[in-house]
Amino acid sequence: MSRRRARPLKVQPLESGGHLNIGIQMHDRIRSSALLERLMTAEQAASLIEPGMTVAMSGFTGAGYPKAVPQALAARMEQSAASGRGFKIKVLTGASTAPELDGALARVEGMELRLPYQSDPNVRERINAGTLNYIDIHLSHVAQHTWFGFFGDINVAVVEVAGILEDGRLIPSSSVGNNKTWLDQADKVILEVNRWQPAALEGMHDIYYGTALPPNRKPIPLTLPDQRIGEPYLRVDPDRIVAIVETDAPDRNSAFSPPDEASRQIAGHLLDFLGQEIRRGRLTDKLLPLQSGVGNIANAVLAGLSQGGYQGLTAYTEVIQDGMLELLKNGTLRMASATSFSLSPAGIEEFNAHVEFYSKRILLRPQEISNHPELIRRLGCIAMNGMIEADIYGNVNSTHIAGSRIMNGIGGSGDFARNGYLSVFMSPSIAKQGKISGIVPMASHVDHTEHDTMVVVTEQGLADLRGLAPKQRAKQIIEHCAHPDYRPLLQDYYDRAFRDSYGKHTPHLLNEALSWHQRFVETGTMMPG
Amino acid sequence: MSRRRARPLKVQPLESGGHLNIGIQMHDRIRSSALLERLMTAEQAASLIEPGMTVAMSGFTGAGYPKAVPQALAARMEQSAASGRGFKIKVLTGASTAPELDGALARVEGMELRLPYQSDPNVRERINAGTLNYIDIHLSHVAQHTWFGFFGDINVAVVEVAGILEDGRLIPSSSVGNNKTWLDQADKVILEVNRWQPAALEGMHDIYYGTALPPNRKPIPLTLPDQRIGEPYLRVDPDRIVAIVETDAPDRNSAFSPPDEASRQIAGHLLDFLGQEIRRGRLTDKLLPLQSGVGNIANAVLAGLSQGGYQGLTAYTEVIQDGMLELLKNGTLRMASATSFSLSPAGIEEFNAHVEFYSKRILLRPQEISNHPELIRRLGCIAMNGMIEADIYGNVNSTHIAGSRIMNGIGGSGDFARNGYLSVFMSPSIAKQGKISGIVPMASHVDHTEHDTMVVVTEQGLADLRGLAPKQRAKQIIEHCAHPDYRPLLQDYYDRAFRDSYGKHTPHLLNEALSWHQRFVETGTMMPG
Repeated sequence: MSRRRARPLKVQPLESGGHLNIGIQMHDRIRSSALLERLMTAEQAASLIEPGMTVAMSGFTGAGYPKAVPQALAARMEQSAASGRGFKIKVLTGASTAPELDGALARVEGMELRLPYQSDPNVRERINAGTLNYIDIHLSHVAQHTWFGFFGDINVAVVEVAGILEDGRLIPSSSVGNNKTWLDQADKVILEVNRWQPAALEGMHDIYYGTALPPNRKPIPLTLPDQRIGEPYLRVDPDRIVAIVETDAPDRNSAFSPPDEASRQIAGHLLDFLGQEIRRGRLTDKLLPLQSGVGNIANAVLAGLSQGGYQGLTAYTEVIQDGMLELLKNGTLRMASATSFSLSPAGIEEFNAHVEFYSKRILLRPQEISNHPELIRRLGCIAMNGMIEADIYGNVNSTHIAGSRIMNGIGGSGDFARNGYLSVFMSPSIAKQGKISGIVPMASHVDHTEHDTMVVVTEQGLADLRGLAPKQRAKQIIEHCAHPDYRPLLQDYYDRAFRDSYGKHTPHLLNEALSWHQRFVETGTMMPG
Repeated sequence: MSRRRARPLKVQPLESGGHLNIGIQMHDRIRSSALLERLMTAEQAASLIEPGMTVAMSGFTGAGYPKAVPQALAARMEQSAASGRGFKIKVLTGASTAPELDGALARVEGMELRLPYQSDPNVRERINAGTLNYIDIHLSHVAQHTWFGFFGDINVAVVEVAGILEDGRLIPSSSVGNNKTWLDQADKVILEVNRWQPAALEGMHDIYYGTALPPNRKPIPLTLPDQRIGEPYLRVDPDRIVAIVETDAPDRNSAFSPPDEASRQIAGHLLDFLGQEIRRGRLTDKLLPLQSGVGNIANAVLAGLSQGGYQGLTAYTEVIQDGMLELLKNGTLRMASATSFSLSPAGIEEFNAHVEFYSKRILLRPQEISNHPELIRRLGCIAMNGMIEADIYGNVNSTHIAGSRIMNGIGGSGDFARNGYLSVFMSPSIAKQGKISGIVPMASHVDHTEHDTMVVVTEQGLADLRGLAPKQRAKQIIEHCAHPDYRPLLQDYYDRAFRDSYGKHTPHLLNEALSWHQRFVETGTMMPG
């Protein structure tokens, strides 16, 4: 194999404790004097990036992304454009970042390619205008496809860390994402050392260095969500560190909005269902490790678990949200494994105020481990993800409006839905004051096939699709999940499709299957006039 | 968990050698005298199955299915229908079976539900008439969903074996499929002991008994395709064996047809591609374990590997076809792991004539192991599967004609495509004398999403989609894979979609996206008049 393998570092034993001592010292987060020599400004560091390069950056759900170099790079790109020279790069990340990275580079038209998951309005606008190429890829595939060489060489990595040890090892930041791979694979490494990140992050990470390329792969030894299988630090070949930039800047930290009524109803249906599964003996009251998407519905589900009296659960998921801190605090969760934080300012405050408590109950892993099919299947995760729409047969669209316009991306939903014990997709039954139905005759884009969807939930109810054939699924979804305004229209479509369809395994009227979306594009609503 | 666990048997030590001694003795395949007492006719055994029962049967790709009981059951069903009483059961298998099982039960309308993969014309006809419910499920999911209780109780298992040992353990037949799970989970077990099956099958199986339900799952220790991790025999609780039926009947054994010109061209493009990957240093000349679908194209690929001078390859796949025997013989393959045979009569003859040779080079495993995501990802399989159609963005339809009519099913293609090192989908660019294009504007059903398709091949050429965004993929697929008769139509669709689409990430014209399929349904051809 031609791809570079990480060269093992000669590791110095840690000093006792090994925790960062935040003092008045200037560069207290950089404890390697050799590396201190590579300190420079963000502008100097950004000048090491050239047009056409493939640049891998840290960042996952608005946490742990570089704050200074991308903005300095954007300024450079703008100057370059002003003097008539285009300057675009290819950008790989962990997942979504923030205005200082995605936003800054998009505004100066500085990206020719972006992968994987994104959620920035400026990026989205350019993707949907057709001027920015975006690859929407399973989060568990990014690291290995990089190692396989499928994205070509990684010229530069720009990675935020919380600190640098004496021996050159790195204290990871508030997300791990693909950082291990970026540091292993990039020709040159730029580090941003962000002193804003809590010093208490040190020790909360579990970086697994046992991955390999086939045919040399071994079983990943993790069998429990709270098991440590790696080390708390990232390794990097010091010879490849070309710049270190100091920052003191907060993560994106979106404010937390309390669950709305529809989200609470969705959570209620899901919790009823989990309760039934326990009574049937299919789950115990410890459930199985929870994976939960980000946002309002996910928060409502977490709150519902807490109110439902569950105790001692675990999470094996991607993101630690505010809701999870609360569940850890009241014992609903006994621990959470993830690859990133996504806390509100209040959540950060809570975390910092009780760092001792949380640091024993949270583990952050590389996203190739948090999302690994092997581990998700072994642990039997309960996968709970949002969606844009489901069709009456259970095909789920997580990414596109009207089949063509990207929202964010598939993220890790496919990793968990395919391999989990249960795959649940949730959405309000309508959006935009009823102009959009979350249940449609045919999904306008399919991210999760009929083969991968077990449960669909809206505020109207829950459809349990396990052990059902397509026509049985349609009955469940129309009756339990569709909004009353759209239900008769769906039933009418299904009845006519069953009567007239070419085949009656999955009845469809092809000249009508996407007509709801077309009507939305033409008139602004899926509802016939 | 309420599901039954396999009770460990008290296993007697095997006699030296332990091989079956085919003699003139009447019941020489049944060496347990206690079990001999449960010998009965197929009709007697079939009388133990009642209407409404869930019956799990052996069988995978026309191999190792029960030959006598299903036909006797069909006769019973027919009598029942004649006297005005409906008699339907739910049927679970490994994958496709044969006329004696699927055909017989379908002809008497004896199934209310069938899962997973099927390929019987009588079954297909009823599914598409809307009178038989069919669940198309990933082959790797069937066993665990049974254990999870998602299909309800398994009332009866009907499993073909090649013999019964003194201690009651079973010599598996020409396929393993889900038999371990059926024997573990069914309330009652009916065995068919088929003396037609080669005695040399004994010892060729590797039945893994280390599976468990979450949260008790452990890593599966397999790291090489030829590694044994289990035992050569199936276990069964003798108290649950309610009937043993002796048979002497051949497997389906479809004749082998030599690859046609289009298949050879497809294979040629794929072999050129693999050669390039080797030259780029991304693969070695040992490649990685091969998974190959069944049929003409797969056979052409295998033949091409042999002609290409490859030596010492491995297969980690579902089915051993004639082509694989040849590759084992000439050293192209050094071993093959699968869950089933699917040989022609000539292939059977070849196998029997050189049993010593083949039995050292072939391992048959349960399909939950042959198709396990953990193992496919670890081994880095090269997944090569046929398809019905791909759209210009790389979404693949493996199952439906015109979005509604089922052909066979997804089989294991999703298990391998999602988790393999490479996922390749292959089809001729046209079918039915050009009336159907294998490349369409939008797939009429999606079994493999854009996130899971790396390479598309037709006889026209190969599209390498790795590292490409949707619009870049469309260019590759239209230019390299579409048939010249359809290429300008696809380009025209794409150009207009790019101009007028609601979003330009995945440009589509929703009122036209499925019009090719609708035209085919209405006029019998996708080509405009």
